[in-house]
Amino acid sequence: MNTEAPVLEVCFSPALLHLYDTRNTVVVIIDVFRATSTIAAALGNGAKEVIPVASVEDCIRIGQETPNSLTAGERDGKIAPGLAYGNSPLEYPRSFVEGKSLVLTTTNGTRLLHMVNDADLIITGSFLNLTAVCDFLLSRRQKVLLGCASWKDRFNLEDSLFAGAVVSKLRPFFQVNCDSARAARHLHESSEGRYLDFLKDSSHYKRLSGYGLEKDMEYCTTPDLHPVVPIYQAGALVGL
Amino acid sequence: MNTEAPVLEVCFSPALLHLYDTRNTVVVIIDVFRATSTIAAALGNGAKEVIPVASVEDCIRIGQETPNSLTAGERDGKIAPGLAYGNSPLEYPRSFVEGKSLVLTTTNGTRLLHMVNDADLIITGSFLNLTAVCDFLLSRRQKVLLGCASWKDRFNLEDSLFAGAVVSKLRPFFQVNCDSARAARHLHESSEGRYLDFLKDSSHYKRLSGYGLEKDMEYCTTPDLHPVVPIYQAGALVGL
Repeated sequence: MNTEAPVLEVCFSPALLHLYDTRNTVVVIIDVFRATSTIAAALGNGAKEVIPVASVEDCIRIGQETPNSLTAGERDGKIAPGLAYGNSPLEYPRSFVEGKSLVLTTTNGTRLLHMVNDADLIITGSFLNLTAVCDFLLSRRQKVLLGCASWKDRFNLEDSLFAGAVVSKLRPFFQVNCDSARAARHLHESSEGRYLDFLKDSSHYKRLSGYGLEKDMEYCTTPDLHPVVPIYQAGALVGL
Repeated sequence: MNTEAPVLEVCFSPALLHLYDTRNTVVVIIDVFRATSTIAAALGNGAKEVIPVASVEDCIRIGQETPNSLTAGERDGKIAPGLAYGNSPLEYPRSFVEGKSLVLTTTNGTRLLHMVNDADLIITGSFLNLTAVCDFLLSRRQKVLLGCASWKDRFNLEDSLFAGAVVSKLRPFFQVNCDSARAARHLHESSEGRYLDFLKDSSHYKRLSGYGLEKDMEYCTTPDLHPVVPIYQAGALVGL
């Protein structure tokens, strides 16, 4: 372990975030099913920005205030009343989303993003932009915290699997003395790169497949379809 | 998955305990390095009881009040001032501990044990009594929560590895729809049963080996040396 190298840690739940010092840190928000996948897809397909908001009410209001915007969000697997679109990354092809502001309400991912107050920088990560995120973190040479949005504060398999994919790529260049990061890496090795198959035995896959969203999850587990780094600044995520 | 079977879940940190309903549940407290290993060793070697207490002050006071007792506890890898013995399971052979009350103060394990208020039953688990704990849980046919003591609320590898060992043994007989339990099982499979080797790359191994405690950790990762089920009742753990 290179003790000159920056530190890399993994936080498995927003309920554990207080255990980590996020100052002077790049925090990567991870919500694979599906917020941060949809963010990568929208920005990768040329959206001007994604504005993450906590509530349906905020989504409607900010959508009204923002020119050339779309409002999107689901509750219980359906488009929330008052909003126009859903949470699926497949809903945002270039022909539709290019140049627009996507106002997106999600529960777990948005909540974690808003909980991080004092980080140097917040970005979002998903399999869709895995390599872009890793290359960006490598180029920064700065302390990193991979923050799993989880499901209502409960550990989930898909976010920790993605964290493990990042740890596997970055560990030669970072100090990793964090058991969460080690466990995430072991999970990633257990998957043998077959992310979709691995996640079929997860709570979220079972829940979302109950809504008929198997295609979404297949898409969300495909690496590097959208090589973009979503950076959070002034209340919106913009693509680097 | 047998939907008639009782539910089995894993909690990775005391800071996540509030997410679980522990009513009508057998909670297994897990603190592999070293509280629940020492408890298994002491009771396995014939101690009358182990009284877990939170502070050194309580340990001294309860030791004075309890006939034929030993006070034990460490802080920063050394016997705490005012106490007579340490946290090592190797300190409690039958010739020494048989018939005695061990008043033991530990930080993580004791804290989690005292946080569980409404469970049907609390027991403790470690590799030293792995099969005895599993057989007991099987015989109860009741909802189970495996509670990892963790390290100052942070996920740790050794407690989750043990949880995974239990999940691997019990999953044919329980409903397991809990991503923490799935991840723990994957960790256990990754270890291929070589627990000590697997845990050499863990934060706690590194910390305790800094105190020269490698022999302790070798002992704590040896399955089934003490086939006892420590049951918590009236403030003390007694062997079944």
